[in-house]
Amino acid sequence: MAEELTFPGPLAISLEPHLPPTNDSQRSPTRPFVTLTFATSLDSSLSLAPGVRTRLSGPDSKAMTHHLRSRHSAILVGVSTVLADNPGLNCRIAGVASQPRPIVVDPHLRWAPRSSDKVFGVCRAGAGSAPFVLTGVPAEEIPRDYVRLLEDHGGKYVHVPATPSGRDARPRLSWEDVFGALLAQGLTSIMVEGGGHVINSLLDPAHHELIDSVIVTIAPTWLGKGGVVVSPDRVHDDDGTPLAAARLSGVSWLPLGEDVVLCGKLQSRH
Amino acid sequence: MAEELTFPGPLAISLEPHLPPTNDSQRSPTRPFVTLTFATSLDSSLSLAPGVRTRLSGPDSKAMTHHLRSRHSAILVGVSTVLADNPGLNCRIAGVASQPRPIVVDPHLRWAPRSSDKVFGVCRAGAGSAPFVLTGVPAEEIPRDYVRLLEDHGGKYVHVPATPSGRDARPRLSWEDVFGALLAQGLTSIMVEGGGHVINSLLDPAHHELIDSVIVTIAPTWLGKGGVVVSPDRVHDDDGTPLAAARLSGVSWLPLGEDVVLCGKLQSRH
Repeated sequence: MAEELTFPGPLAISLEPHLPPTNDSQRSPTRPFVTLTFATSLDSSLSLAPGVRTRLSGPDSKAMTHHLRSRHSAILVGVSTVLADNPGLNCRIAGVASQPRPIVVDPHLRWAPRSSDKVFGVCRAGAGSAPFVLTGVPAEEIPRDYVRLLEDHGGKYVHVPATPSGRDARPRLSWEDVFGALLAQGLTSIMVEGGGHVINSLLDPAHHELIDSVIVTIAPTWLGKGGVVVSPDRVHDDDGTPLAAARLSGVSWLPLGEDVVLCGKLQSRH
Repeated sequence: MAEELTFPGPLAISLEPHLPPTNDSQRSPTRPFVTLTFATSLDSSLSLAPGVRTRLSGPDSKAMTHHLRSRHSAILVGVSTVLADNPGLNCRIAGVASQPRPIVVDPHLRWAPRSSDKVFGVCRAGAGSAPFVLTGVPAEEIPRDYVRLLEDHGGKYVHVPATPSGRDARPRLSWEDVFGALLAQGLTSIMVEGGGHVINSLLDPAHHELIDSVIVTIAPTWLGKGGVVVSPDRVHDDDGTPLAAARLSGVSWLPLGEDVVLCGKLQSRH
């Protein structure tokens, strides 16, 4: 089995103000608490190229990721990450009380799940939960063996209505609908982990109000041109003058080995 | 006159290990101490677009830049920065002992200096030194009014032999020759400030051994796609596998207002 991890207490305390409340039994949220997390190089690359796993951050960073997973009810990735990385999407913190639910956003069912996929392996080993796959494909069009594989492990497909996105683009899921569907499943805190398309979309000002917290690990390295880059689409004011697309407020910079962890909240323009 | 600046003592002490020695009378350097400094967004942009001055970092960052200038004998920028920003290139720290020498790297004489340029204004006001312009253009081909304007202020043109760079590209100056020429002028510590072309060139592994220290200020903002990006050219190993282009060792992460200052040394591959 994979090693268990521990995370240093002092840093966990510093992160706590940026994480979902530990006791939310009193509140009736209208949307889940959403934390956006990722690790980049100094030139804002997630990896050297699509599908190339790139060790960016140090060993403490892995433990932090698993600590953050332990503090959310679900961890969300885009389908490209599943296809590229075959991730386990579980929490390996020693003594974790319950495993977060893996969420795969797969509007057009690009992922053909197989029993050998790592996420099912950790599930069968009792070391992780089975994924929920959010898709715009109607239930009756989903291959029955896909459905059976997910349900045999305790997962399922969750239908989210896809909305046309104009011109040649295929219909897409809105983030409001995605997070709404997750709340309806009883998932009150979501850790969004990637990939680049998901992150850039959520850094767009249209979605800032859906994000409660941003936690970015930065490694002191430049991957160089051609990587998978975190950078949202350009924003302009009414006169066409370019503006910064996103800014964090209430920031903390926490050194973690050779890396730094930046925590903050996306500023709203309103 | 422009305001004078002060820089907090504790941060100055933290920066000191990353700066040129204060007493180098004993050593006979074969090249100057070179510090590479710049400020970027989280998506590694220097500005929203070429020529668009973009306020990225907070007020403390400006004081730090001027403190760093006070600790070097010269500050170097590429000609594009001069053309885009019309910078003063002086040091405004209160009570500074001597002004650093502005260095403009202008291989093909794109800059037509004018008396109204800010760098000459601060010079006439006794608040800055006149620039040295490093160029590959032979002395006899430099317009005489350019030469006179520089020399009237105490500056000059310094010829650096340009080397062919193959195919259609125009001849360029090598960094070895540039830093060698500066040392020959008695300038033993150089703070390189930009712009993007200069920074990306110096982050290339071919030049890491010329750089003694890197100081990067990072602001907690994403400018969005289309900015002037710091990211060196892609590097591959002998098998064609992509590698990280550059990595810092011995790093310090120093919070500065809402920003962070990263200090370190470029790792050599040797």
